[in-house]
Amino acid sequence: MSTTIMVGYFAGFLTTLSFLPQVVKTWKSKSASDLSLGMFSVFSVGVLCWLSYGVLLQEPPIIFWNTITLVLVLSILVMKLRFDS
Amino acid sequence: MSTTIMVGYFAGFLTTLSFLPQVVKTWKSKSASDLSLGMFSVFSVGVLCWLSYGVLLQEPPIIFWNTITLVLVLSILVMKLRFDS
Repeated sequence: MSTTIMVGYFAGFLTTLSFLPQVVKTWKSKSASDLSLGMFSVFSVGVLCWLSYGVLLQEPPIIFWNTITLVLVLSILVMKLRFDS
Repeated sequence: MSTTIMVGYFAGFLTTLSFLPQVVKTWKSKSASDLSLGMFSVFSVGVLCWLSYGVLLQEPPIIFWNTITLVLVLSILVMKLRFDS
């Protein structure tokens, strides 16, 4: 595997997994008022587009990472909507 | 330009620009306690890896979007560190 591809895989691993501490923090604190609804809404649609891009390209790593990211980001979004109201 | 490439460009546009409302919100409220330091730290390193991946591939769109994302995410991180202390 080339260095470039390894850097790409590692980048995807980091940007996907980075949402996990936010999920845990928001779940524990039951507080999400400092989170921007705009950011997480637009980001969700963006990740859905990355997923479509991966499906169109038939690239399993893009499909894999973006599916996990989408689940994590949507769970933050759901908590934001629940805890803010 | 193929549909696939257009979807890719649009996906990058959305996931990059999504950080802008969070920057504005955090700047206005001067409050970042609900944001996960872990998320924004790991995400920054991840975006730096995507940027390196773009440089290695010599792909201008990957370099372009990830440079803007890095600036936005680092500004959120700096505000988090300043406003929390």
